[in-house]
Amino acid sequence: MFTNNEIQLDILKKRAFNLRWASVPDGVIPLTAADPDFPCAPEISEAINRYSSQRYFSYAPAEGHSFFRESVANFHSLKRNVNTNPAHVLAVDSAAYGIYMTCKAFIKKGDEAIIFNPVDFLFKHSIEANQGVSISFAIPLQPDVIIDINELEKLITSKTKMICLCNPLNPTGKVFTKTELLLIGQLAIKYNLIILSDEIWSDIVFEPNVYTSIASLDETIRQQTVIVTGYSKSYGLAGLRAGSVIAPNDKIFEILLQASEHQSTVHGCNVLAQVAVAAALNECEYWLKEFIIHLTHMRNICVDGLNKIDGFKCLTPQGCYLVFPDITKTGLSAETLQKKLIEEAKVAIVPGLSQWFGERATGHIRLSFATSEDIIKESIYRITKTINKL
Amino acid sequence: MFTNNEIQLDILKKRAFNLRWASVPDGVIPLTAADPDFPCAPEISEAINRYSSQRYFSYAPAEGHSFFRESVANFHSLKRNVNTNPAHVLAVDSAAYGIYMTCKAFIKKGDEAIIFNPVDFLFKHSIEANQGVSISFAIPLQPDVIIDINELEKLITSKTKMICLCNPLNPTGKVFTKTELLLIGQLAIKYNLIILSDEIWSDIVFEPNVYTSIASLDETIRQQTVIVTGYSKSYGLAGLRAGSVIAPNDKIFEILLQASEHQSTVHGCNVLAQVAVAAALNECEYWLKEFIIHLTHMRNICVDGLNKIDGFKCLTPQGCYLVFPDITKTGLSAETLQKKLIEEAKVAIVPGLSQWFGERATGHIRLSFATSEDIIKESIYRITKTINKL
Repeated sequence: MFTNNEIQLDILKKRAFNLRWASVPDGVIPLTAADPDFPCAPEISEAINRYSSQRYFSYAPAEGHSFFRESVANFHSLKRNVNTNPAHVLAVDSAAYGIYMTCKAFIKKGDEAIIFNPVDFLFKHSIEANQGVSISFAIPLQPDVIIDINELEKLITSKTKMICLCNPLNPTGKVFTKTELLLIGQLAIKYNLIILSDEIWSDIVFEPNVYTSIASLDETIRQQTVIVTGYSKSYGLAGLRAGSVIAPNDKIFEILLQASEHQSTVHGCNVLAQVAVAAALNECEYWLKEFIIHLTHMRNICVDGLNKIDGFKCLTPQGCYLVFPDITKTGLSAETLQKKLIEEAKVAIVPGLSQWFGERATGHIRLSFATSEDIIKESIYRITKTINKL
Repeated sequence: MFTNNEIQLDILKKRAFNLRWASVPDGVIPLTAADPDFPCAPEISEAINRYSSQRYFSYAPAEGHSFFRESVANFHSLKRNVNTNPAHVLAVDSAAYGIYMTCKAFIKKGDEAIIFNPVDFLFKHSIEANQGVSISFAIPLQPDVIIDINELEKLITSKTKMICLCNPLNPTGKVFTKTELLLIGQLAIKYNLIILSDEIWSDIVFEPNVYTSIASLDETIRQQTVIVTGYSKSYGLAGLRAGSVIAPNDKIFEILLQASEHQSTVHGCNVLAQVAVAAALNECEYWLKEFIIHLTHMRNICVDGLNKIDGFKCLTPQGCYLVFPDITKTGLSAETLQKKLIEEAKVAIVPGLSQWFGERATGHIRLSFATSEDIIKESIYRITKTINKL
């Protein structure tokens, strides 16, 4: 299912935006936004078509359809060991909006929220858009080095309202251990902080690493946790716009629903995205398993290949279909390298700029490997040829 | 296409929320949220299924797909006589969000925006959510009585930034005349105000009334106007969540795009909704024409029937598939009447509460007639039986 023949570049060149095939010059391979090059599982299309053929697209419930909420609750209860009530699941139009509205719900002007550094920009963006202050917690870039919980605790003040956790961590691919999560959870209880647990990458974990949701550790930690997740990474549904926000109890659900603007109809999750997600969760686990097997292989090719490039040092990610090599020894900045790679190697990557991932991303580039072996090998060949002749 | 046989109540009872079939007790007819009871045009389903069958749902462009922007621009250029550049069309996830983000773009804390009274709650809600002040302009409840432009001008202060125009006007069904629109437009130029032109009802206009977009009057007025529209009223697509925001120039487009949060991926319009809207605009004009012929007939049945009910006085709407009878002479408040109708007549309506439509809606109820003749006649029969025995 994940061979090069499966990838339909003619369609991707029309449909894949956000720095991807439809946004780059012809001939350039975009290892940019984390969005698979493979078509989605056929069961997803079939479910959409069945629903669509009945020609009714009436208003959905503000909270989401019950078939959606039940699928999501089942998934978190059975696969994540997080006791989840369907009545506490809110269908949202993306994990990004889930993060944004959770910040809107819990951050008032001047409130502080702790984000790890490096991490994807959406936490900082969402905190600041809601007039909060993001406090940066520097963490090791090595996925297997544990975080220093004492340093994290030192950052907590009377203004701290939230700890933002991205697990697995984009861009380093770290999968947090149970021990780390337990310490974070205990801090959240001690200081009564909301844990915003961004679990969008939680399906993409490579053996022998094991994913743990912080909300699965114990009931008191779960009561502090808002889980946000989405379906673009696991199932290739970014353009459908679907995500979930999961509250631990009625009170927090109500706060989130108020913040969502769903009841006013200003926002909401479209019905076909809900149909697609329910099909993915209920019928496509087989597809996801094969995808992860393929991704594990792609990860190994990337790490091996990138480490043979002069000046590149690439650690092995534990999760996410991203590699994040340190490129400082090339003598080039990430931005200069980005330009060189797009012009000479015809490969587009994401530079590790502060505005995208925090200061600690400096000197790194990020590449997505959710594509075929042919495309990955061709990309590494091109990058190698360009850099090794420097 | 609009007979009772076309309506599939079994599906509506599963899919139509927001106070409609799936939200009311069995046996109750919901003439509540303005959402048609008929299935959408088959071309819309077919377009969705063709797109979906290719199994690629990659990230859409932040601004919307070019096929969507071109369809929308063509529609406004050809059908609305508003010179529209596809590059100034922003695909959004609903007209409601279009209104919200236009307020976010142009209203700062303490700024004033003028809304007509009565009008749908979304203007006031969006202004206040962005810390603005909504200034109420009382207008005649009779659709054919022109507004007093001098009274409107008196409300303009140095803090006024925007005039919010809903044309045709929900809930009274007023279709503004060219003369009225020209006077509003001239005020906007004189005081340099943005006109937020909510055109979601602009397809639903009954002969001999003719719809005019305020942006079609002249180029200087167009330059002050942001058009917001959606596709739920005309084509029954509320659950797909699609709308458009149309800027008059590059500068305003850029301000709106920044306010939209589309570039951060926090918001955006899902691809299948864009596919559906392009199909609706490009292929389904025949369907809309038939729908309006049917609606004209339904309007006449409603107005005649409601005026035979003791204490009801129902004016003839010029547009919108809504009737808005004055029920003060029943001696009941709109809320009491709502309860009585749902309990005894088994018909759900929307009470004319200040929070939904402004103070001038007091003493009125709103009924949607986007359903079959059988359902309309049954509803009026039930309401008549309940009220006339009082």
